[in-house]
Amino acid sequence: MTQTPKIDRTVNGNYFEDFKVGEEIVHATPRTITVGDVSVYTALYSGRFAVQSSDAFAQSIGYPRSPIDDTLVFHFVIGKTVPDVSRNAIANLGYAEFRFLAPVYPGDTIASTSEVIGVKQNSSGKNGTVYVRTTGRNQNGEPVLSFARWVMVVKKDLDLPAPEAVIPELDKEISPETLGKALPPLKLTVYDYALAGSPRRWGDYAVGDKIDHVDGQTIEEAEHQMATRLYQNTARVHFNQHRESQERFGRRLVYGGHIISIARSLSFNGLANAFHVLGLNGARHAAPSFAGDTIYAWSEVLDKAELPGRSDAGALRLRTFAVKDRNCADFPGVKEDGSLEDGVVLDMDYWVALPR
Amino acid sequence: MTQTPKIDRTVNGNYFEDFKVGEEIVHATPRTITVGDVSVYTALYSGRFAVQSSDAFAQSIGYPRSPIDDTLVFHFVIGKTVPDVSRNAIANLGYAEFRFLAPVYPGDTIASTSEVIGVKQNSSGKNGTVYVRTTGRNQNGEPVLSFARWVMVVKKDLDLPAPEAVIPELDKEISPETLGKALPPLKLTVYDYALAGSPRRWGDYAVGDKIDHVDGQTIEEAEHQMATRLYQNTARVHFNQHRESQERFGRRLVYGGHIISIARSLSFNGLANAFHVLGLNGARHAAPSFAGDTIYAWSEVLDKAELPGRSDAGALRLRTFAVKDRNCADFPGVKEDGSLEDGVVLDMDYWVALPR
Amino acid sequence: MTQTPKIDRTVNGNYFEDFKVGEEIVHATPRTITVGDVSVYTALYSGRFAVQSSDAFAQSIGYPRSPIDDTLVFHFVIGKTVPDVSRNAIANLGYAEFRFLAPVYPGDTIASTSEVIGVKQNSSGKNGTVYVRTTGRNQNGEPVLSFARWVMVVKKDLDLPAPEAVIPELDKEISPETLGKALPPLKLTVYDYALAGSPRRWGDYAVGDKIDHVDGQTIEEAEHQMATRLYQNTARVHFNQHRESQERFGRRLVYGGHIISIARSLSFNGLANAFHVLGLNGARHAAPSFAGDTIYAWSEVLDKAELPGRSDAGALRLRTFAVKDRNCADFPGVKEDGSLEDGVVLDMDYWVALPR
Repeated sequence: MTQTPKIDRTVNGNYFEDFKVGEEIVHATPRTITVGDVSVYTALYSGRFAVQSSDAFAQSIGYPRSPIDDTLVFHFVIGKTVPDVSRNAIANLGYAEFRFLAPVYPGDTIASTSEVIGVKQNSSGKNGTVYVRTTGRNQNGEPVLSFARWVMVVKKDLDLPAPEAVIPELDKEISPETLGKALPPLKLTVYDYALAGSPRRWGDYAVGDKIDHVDGQTIEEAEHQMATRLYQNTARVHFNQHRESQERFGRRLVYGGHIISIARSLSFNGLANAFHVLGLNGARHAAPSFAGDTIYAWSEVLDKAELPGRSDAGALRLRTFAVKDRNCADFPGVKEDGSLEDGVVLDMDYWVALPR
Repeated sequence: MTQTPKIDRTVNGNYFEDFKVGEEIVHATPRTITVGDVSVYTALYSGRFAVQSSDAFAQSIGYPRSPIDDTLVFHFVIGKTVPDVSRNAIANLGYAEFRFLAPVYPGDTIASTSEVIGVKQNSSGKNGTVYVRTTGRNQNGEPVLSFARWVMVVKKDLDLPAPEAVIPELDKEISPETLGKALPPLKLTVYDYALAGSPRRWGDYAVGDKIDHVDGQTIEEAEHQMATRLYQNTARVHFNQHRESQERFGRRLVYGGHIISIARSLSFNGLANAFHVLGLNGARHAAPSFAGDTIYAWSEVLDKAELPGRSDAGALRLRTFAVKDRNCADFPGVKEDGSLEDGVVLDMDYWVALPR
Repeated sequence: MTQTPKIDRTVNGNYFEDFKVGEEIVHATPRTITVGDVSVYTALYSGRFAVQSSDAFAQSIGYPRSPIDDTLVFHFVIGKTVPDVSRNAIANLGYAEFRFLAPVYPGDTIASTSEVIGVKQNSSGKNGTVYVRTTGRNQNGEPVLSFARWVMVVKKDLDLPAPEAVIPELDKEISPETLGKALPPLKLTVYDYALAGSPRRWGDYAVGDKIDHVDGQTIEEAEHQMATRLYQNTARVHFNQHRESQERFGRRLVYGGHIISIARSLSFNGLANAFHVLGLNGARHAAPSFAGDTIYAWSEVLDKAELPGRSDAGALRLRTFAVKDRNCADFPGVKEDGSLEDGVVLDMDYWVALPR
């Protein structure tokens, strides 16, 4: 494993042939997360989980103060990888082994590194799949989030030979037994369900439950641009109308993570006590979103599990669909032929924690 | 008085028949207010009152640091009540006995409760007026803001009998003698009128003075959405173009409190030392506002009063009109027939404090 | 030198005849800068200089914590002068002797004063040039930024005689020997070039280097309005569509400083270690910008200099062009006849510091 700082790699990004298995990429611009970021995030998504909204509530159940929203931590960690990993990517293909490992608090500084764990040139010879394992760490070097990710990246010098294909073995699913490290022990005797917004605990949900998150959020250009800039995510498709007007869609694309945050925020309606994301099995951005779209969401409970060695909280595996310009009262998701319903923009499979 | 947490009441809201006189509603999601919220608020309204803008200025006159803008405190306190009180409301009918009771500082956590103090079914049987007294409290349980409010709420089950009508006795006006609890003693010898933006003190204003606040602010969709999300106010009409496109106005409505904050911010022009809102007699949202509207404002001094037991500050009763797409140099307000001039969107009657 | 607070001068602004040479104007509304402001600023421009982004990085090289971005300090200092100096200005004519003098940190309170150092009525008799020297100071009275500026201001009472012309002697250029006071001694042994985003130090740049900053940023109305309000800059042309619809351009103008911040942020691509602005020779807003414009930028290295008495950092003199709706790969700037290329909106000449 070698560290290879490249001359101004952040400017033009890496191409398929630049990725060497075993290489460790140190991503630029560590980021101190503050209460200011929390406020901008609230202005963008209006999250209402009590633990993340109230220091007093968080302290009452055992946190030192409100932790940073998990999804926001994810945006920062992945945002740093964009200049190196996905500036020249055609597609974000998948995630695996995605786990939150420690809580993040205002004042913590997050930096990201990625190890190249696989490469496979496509048969066309014009691009290939790059596999990386990205780790976000705080100022003490402690991992706060880790995930594998694979993206399809353009090859620049088509005359170069294909590298030896290396496809990493990755777990198809995260096991709930491996989750919960970012969740401190909870003092449930003082957990105030009225303040939290719902009396429904882990035990009140059953596999197969379908939950309409009811509300919809319309996206404005200024909003998704501010979000993505807040995360220091430099993907050009989100910011540059002059360039995008000449591209396929003719307009700026909304960062897929913006949809994830909207869906997560809407999910408070029906999942008010599911305040912590433990990990993620996958998130498929099924269709692009644009300014003007109104995003609705609904969730299905796919599975339930205990968390290892603890009786304070349990885990729900959720499949959340975000759907544009369509109310989710009828749970639009997968059609009979297995394809997704029209309007589905996000199909996300993840585990959340709730008090027991 | 009983506490009645309802199953996922935050999702679909309460209907007229759900409100029982004497019930105390604990509203969800307490909120720690931070310097981040102050910055987003400044980015949205550009308030220039020195006390709220500068810790150094605030400390010089006796505050421990800059207090949170009163209007922002109001937005948080009322925002929490929306899922329970006004999600199914047709109209916001009035306010009474509205007083700020203690200053709020960054780091404080605000939560709201509302006592149902009256219900009266309308003759149509399809809806009714609900009266609540809402109190915002800080993390120590200390009240920071209290007001009565009545809203017209939809009845869901029209077959239910009308409840016994209870109409609370509420003061028509707040007496200035009851105001000032949120204003600490001021060290006026060091109050810097140049830094504050005007030499005009309480004694420099006379009843009948009309003050044009001169500037105008154009509203963008992203701005009012970010504001209302910051306050965790979930009223759907502000966020969901997909739904609103099928409703009466065909578009998203701007939260009435957004107009209040614009007017309050503009009022710095001419009222630069009126840095604290003591209380409110009423605020009438005379017409809806939409993105694209430009808001101007002007104020008339309705009354002057001393504050009980103090010589450092006095109170002015103001009537502030916010007017859209019309310069206020000619003070557009009430027509000869008593109706409001075209373009008036807000007619607000309140008390502010100024140094003497 | 006399201090002259004027009755509600902040409301209608000063006219040419109101400026008296020797007068010291105390600008209203001191401003405590917080981490909240940093977050809103990041959401608007997405700056990626490691020193300003990460407390941990800043501390590692000798700062007590991340300093406030220099350009943001500038926006606050100049924003306060608008009500007094440039509310009735027709044109911003120039800057001189513009130097950052001390770092600013979250929690510091900034206030501005301006000394009138020159006046010269124009031959038309309808307006004149006003020269001021503006100083931003922190809560301890320590200057953090000082610059001379001249603006053309409207005369209100055309019957008044012309004042005696006073044209101050100002340095044509700032000497690098006078720069560096706001840059603490740097511990370069621990400066992490991978985290900073580039290995290129001061010695790696040569006079004549041209650097394309590659990316483009599209401006939305909500964004430039939020920016300018954050700075409490009250210039009407940025906020009031109702009024601007009847003016020359028919629409709101983007604050020139918004373009400066976009260009400075884009310049990270190619200048990742140029984290500090030392001073400015000039900034010409060559054409107005409007919402919908996409801003690109490129820079030329005009000069290199050592900083007096220090071996840790050196200075580069840059000329940065911001260009709208045009990729800067071909470095559009000055045409053969000396005029600016179409699309250039900003031509800025300034000094930055880099590690040696």
